[in-house]
Amino acid sequence: MIRFECDYTEGAHPNVLDLLVRTNSDRTPGYGTDDYCEKARALIRDLCQNPRADVHFLTGGTQTNATVIASILRPHQGVLCAETAHIQTHETGAVEASGHRVLPLPSPDGKVTAGQIEDAYNRHWNDVVHEHTVQPGMVYISNPTETGLIYSKEELSSLSRVCRERKLPLFLDGARLGYGLAAQSNDLSLADIAALCDVFFIGGTKVGTLFGEAVVITNPELGRDFRYIVKQRGALLAKGRLLGVQFIALLENGLYFDISAHAVGLAMRLRKAFEEKGYAFLYPSDTNQQFPIIPDAHLAVLAKNYTFSFWEKTDEKNTAVRFCTSWATSEEEVDSLIRDLRAL
Amino acid sequence: MIRFECDYTEGAHPNVLDLLVRTNSDRTPGYGTDDYCEKARALIRDLCQNPRADVHFLTGGTQTNATVIASILRPHQGVLCAETAHIQTHETGAVEASGHRVLPLPSPDGKVTAGQIEDAYNRHWNDVVHEHTVQPGMVYISNPTETGLIYSKEELSSLSRVCRERKLPLFLDGARLGYGLAAQSNDLSLADIAALCDVFFIGGTKVGTLFGEAVVITNPELGRDFRYIVKQRGALLAKGRLLGVQFIALLENGLYFDISAHAVGLAMRLRKAFEEKGYAFLYPSDTNQQFPIIPDAHLAVLAKNYTFSFWEKTDEKNTAVRFCTSWATSEEEVDSLIRDLRAL
Amino acid sequence: MIRFECDYTEGAHPNVLDLLVRTNSDRTPGYGTDDYCEKARALIRDLCQNPRADVHFLTGGTQTNATVIASILRPHQGVLCAETAHIQTHETGAVEASGHRVLPLPSPDGKVTAGQIEDAYNRHWNDVVHEHTVQPGMVYISNPTETGLIYSKEELSSLSRVCRERKLPLFLDGARLGYGLAAQSNDLSLADIAALCDVFFIGGTKVGTLFGEAVVITNPELGRDFRYIVKQRGALLAKGRLLGVQFIALLENGLYFDISAHAVGLAMRLRKAFEEKGYAFLYPSDTNQQFPIIPDAHLAVLAKNYTFSFWEKTDEKNTAVRFCTSWATSEEEVDSLIRDLRAL
Amino acid sequence: MIRFECDYTEGAHPNVLDLLVRTNSDRTPGYGTDDYCEKARALIRDLCQNPRADVHFLTGGTQTNATVIASILRPHQGVLCAETAHIQTHETGAVEASGHRVLPLPSPDGKVTAGQIEDAYNRHWNDVVHEHTVQPGMVYISNPTETGLIYSKEELSSLSRVCRERKLPLFLDGARLGYGLAAQSNDLSLADIAALCDVFFIGGTKVGTLFGEAVVITNPELGRDFRYIVKQRGALLAKGRLLGVQFIALLENGLYFDISAHAVGLAMRLRKAFEEKGYAFLYPSDTNQQFPIIPDAHLAVLAKNYTFSFWEKTDEKNTAVRFCTSWATSEEEVDSLIRDLRAL
Repeated sequence: MIRFECDYTEGAHPNVLDLLVRTNSDRTPGYGTDDYCEKARALIRDLCQNPRADVHFLTGGTQTNATVIASILRPHQGVLCAETAHIQTHETGAVEASGHRVLPLPSPDGKVTAGQIEDAYNRHWNDVVHEHTVQPGMVYISNPTETGLIYSKEELSSLSRVCRERKLPLFLDGARLGYGLAAQSNDLSLADIAALCDVFFIGGTKVGTLFGEAVVITNPELGRDFRYIVKQRGALLAKGRLLGVQFIALLENGLYFDISAHAVGLAMRLRKAFEEKGYAFLYPSDTNQQFPIIPDAHLAVLAKNYTFSFWEKTDEKNTAVRFCTSWATSEEEVDSLIRDLRAL
Repeated sequence: MIRFECDYTEGAHPNVLDLLVRTNSDRTPGYGTDDYCEKARALIRDLCQNPRADVHFLTGGTQTNATVIASILRPHQGVLCAETAHIQTHETGAVEASGHRVLPLPSPDGKVTAGQIEDAYNRHWNDVVHEHTVQPGMVYISNPTETGLIYSKEELSSLSRVCRERKLPLFLDGARLGYGLAAQSNDLSLADIAALCDVFFIGGTKVGTLFGEAVVITNPELGRDFRYIVKQRGALLAKGRLLGVQFIALLENGLYFDISAHAVGLAMRLRKAFEEKGYAFLYPSDTNQQFPIIPDAHLAVLAKNYTFSFWEKTDEKNTAVRFCTSWATSEEEVDSLIRDLRAL
Repeated sequence: MIRFECDYTEGAHPNVLDLLVRTNSDRTPGYGTDDYCEKARALIRDLCQNPRADVHFLTGGTQTNATVIASILRPHQGVLCAETAHIQTHETGAVEASGHRVLPLPSPDGKVTAGQIEDAYNRHWNDVVHEHTVQPGMVYISNPTETGLIYSKEELSSLSRVCRERKLPLFLDGARLGYGLAAQSNDLSLADIAALCDVFFIGGTKVGTLFGEAVVITNPELGRDFRYIVKQRGALLAKGRLLGVQFIALLENGLYFDISAHAVGLAMRLRKAFEEKGYAFLYPSDTNQQFPIIPDAHLAVLAKNYTFSFWEKTDEKNTAVRFCTSWATSEEEVDSLIRDLRAL
Repeated sequence: MIRFECDYTEGAHPNVLDLLVRTNSDRTPGYGTDDYCEKARALIRDLCQNPRADVHFLTGGTQTNATVIASILRPHQGVLCAETAHIQTHETGAVEASGHRVLPLPSPDGKVTAGQIEDAYNRHWNDVVHEHTVQPGMVYISNPTETGLIYSKEELSSLSRVCRERKLPLFLDGARLGYGLAAQSNDLSLADIAALCDVFFIGGTKVGTLFGEAVVITNPELGRDFRYIVKQRGALLAKGRLLGVQFIALLENGLYFDISAHAVGLAMRLRKAFEEKGYAFLYPSDTNQQFPIIPDAHLAVLAKNYTFSFWEKTDEKNTAVRFCTSWATSEEEVDSLIRDLRAL
């Protein structure tokens, strides 16, 4: 069985694992106060071209989203996002569990537009009884989105401008950020993202590490006491250096960008093969997640040798599914799938 | 200016106020442990034909909704309701502030159907990663709804059956319950509601009292330690007897039903006058809230002498608005409005 | 049975009730946006000699404490207070229910000193792993305390200075404030309190109203969006004018101060009678709560005709109890008790 | 510098790391649904002699404590524990952040007795206004405690009995459980603990893994929907198999018990050396944490080559400190310290 169902079915990239092994017997203080974490922070600040960015390492995505959001909002505020956002669909109400409403916006493609934020903001403040409703307090986006799409520099700049004018911190979930930066249509750099967002994270779990997400806070008003909130939410890893070590391995020599490009290259080969079969796509993704709409008869054959994720029935005989590549997917695995596709 | 904008612009019905005055210098223990509260509880148990119902008195609707919901749900559970439900639209995220997501269902008319609950339940439990999503833990409805409509006995029985089969407690918000029971099309009694719901409340604030909602818990599994949660949420009134006294005045001689019928009768007169003008209605309400769609030119004239609530623009030249009657509305006020309507 | 067990066994002072009756049929907008509330706010601003104070009316003490505290603290912060503080002892964990720890300080007499705040603050910030502990985020005191004592102007000034130097908002619970202001040893005015605290409330429930507490926010950094949080916590009374009306009756002609002086005068007569019997006191209160230590044999006799509250056993044969007077206690009731005391 | 400051300064035991490396390229489903986790669960059930125990793997201690506690308590309930408990002292109010009060009991030695639980329970339920106070809802203990002590089988049996009679679930924090089981005075087995507690965890972070705590739920009433709450709190590791793999390495061949015994053996050598110097101890620990009281002059010398943790000043010239050994401490390191101690 060859697995394309998601991008976290293996352990870590060998280089990451290797550095964990080589540093295993070092003795360091705990909770991210060690030299490895410090070095990883410096690497991230360099890549972000922001020497004053505040960098924190957490373990997983849900934890990171809930921690960042809880650190920003006051009790009566909620977080604007796409209706397909991970915080709305797949985090068991983690945001609500910290007291805040998720405020989903309609989004056929998984993105949020500057105009939508403007409208939601105006709708709230124009309501004569606005204090009877949840106040929009920040904006959450993902890049790439859950639908595999990316924001252009123009789109993100507009969002950023609208958010700053309204004092709505803009938070970018970068669980798959590497795969977005590697997309052919991408025109955003890490430095752009650092400049345009108030806080974002560079995801490790899906891009080469065992686990770990690096939170980058660029808005100095937001960073205050962040470590308390990380600790309170059980997200301050005792052996914090494990996170520092992994991000060093990932970022020191560009590994993060290389393996992301590798995964996206393979995804583009898959996309082409799907197109050649005449399949349509649920979302026009050029990142590592592909959403072809495939006749159920074909899917039944493919399911014998490949795993993939069910997304939605598009009609009686066809189904949209998700195939993911990752840093761990091999050329041979993609060759095999393409061969079997052509044979259908 | 004659006010039709909502049903809580005055103080209390004179009989209620009178009993407050007459009992003012009595000395009683606090927090609802007094004899007035006990007597009011007995009256409610009688009306509900349920001698074992657990009855608690709280101050207002948002407080009551949040307290009941917090007492029932576990941390990972949410509350199913119509998208127009008060807990979704006008309580500043009170449910989320106690850690739970509101799970709104599409509802053009403000009601929730048994089929919708069944579907939402199945959708959750059929999801292979259901533990990554909020679990439906109870159902909230209002009767009348925010749209002025009422549930038939058949509808409420179906809902109740679907909820009980799935162990989803059914909670009915009765902020305007009297006006629903007085509707011409109503076929539900208080006893029916007590039998079909697990918990509901009889609203006083909008039907004759200064303030106060009587929570009736008929499912014995739900009542445990309810007073703690009332106290924790700041909802245990020190001079609790004020609530008991008011509900005695309201319920002892049927005042609650009489004043509700009065208000609904006046609303029906208004409805007829709107119909005669050829106005359509946003919702076909036969309770105390009427939602006519009125040409903006007419509204501009009416606004000189009457208050009403803006609901929504239905097209460029027409607007749906809400006119409320209440126990305090007089025949003369309705006469005046009808006269002015005819003159338009 | 003559009741001295607490100071909220009756309804409202007749003048308060009278104004409620006289304004009952007025029609006003809801939620505290009416003219009565506006007038009551103006009266309070005048008494506080602070024309810019932000004034809000809530229903009860627990609700007010939890709302004010939730509006101020960030998630990782707690509230410093005396171990006898109401938020620590008698609010069913309402502060914790909004996510914050109560941080009790040892306090034999119920007061908090400036030195204790300084120490607690230093202890926290000198801890090398302070982010693993709850950060002190504000200070809560009561005046009078639960033990019937009051802060002197010098004490409150010291507390205020220490708090302001450390950016710890100082919140004064004034549930019984009138009885404190009326104490013979008192040298604080409402204007002093408004100047020295960041937020406080003037309690109505125990001093003449049916219910109601007036929150006065003098630190402009704290007031932002307070109404949202009041609404979210179910504390925004629909017929908000009931609160405005009651505070007008209480404050317009000095009634609040007169009835407080009345209650304290009677308490001083009781104190003298206890002293004459040779009873010691648990706390040297000169406000409306008296805590004599009485032989159990005497208590058994008194209990036949008087209610009072058990406080603690001081040894095998003696018990500290609480006798409260209030605006509603009469000279005759106190005469009777004194007579019966002397006869023991 | 030789580190004795805590027991988590290194990575993982080489065998644990080795199995992580060997399984790194395996492809598994996520979130703990893989075969490694299943095998680790079976090993734990065997060791606990409880084939129906419900086993879940989380990442760290604070996260585990907060998740277990949130899954058990209703909103008005708190958790009884020693005043030295980790949840009270070093988790930044994580319990409160999920809405519950920590209810600390006086504890000079860090343990909780059956009598204390009984008293606290009775004190609550005998209080006439108990619903105005936080209801004890469960009991939290650590074994070993933060003070290095262990519960005897008799002590734990008494606690268990008292808790079960009062329906208070008993939760044992086993962050250092291995070091407790290895203590010379220990007479508890894992099976005993599983039988006497309702839920406990076997800590990996401090006993051989990179991270990870194995929660064992033996009371079937408590396990319901636990995975939802784990996910909601950001504690459901995407690559969950990393936890399964580590616990297999730890438990399959008794490694957990061997390395624990190694650490405790070294600690006993240290204790003897301290005794020989005539040092007293803050706590009479026979586990891996030692708390000698050492003259400040000696400490100054030791601090040049060794790290240890400050605990408290015992008088002007002496300080209690903590020395920890772990699975990673070597005989040579202990030899060196003993040599230097003798030379003082």
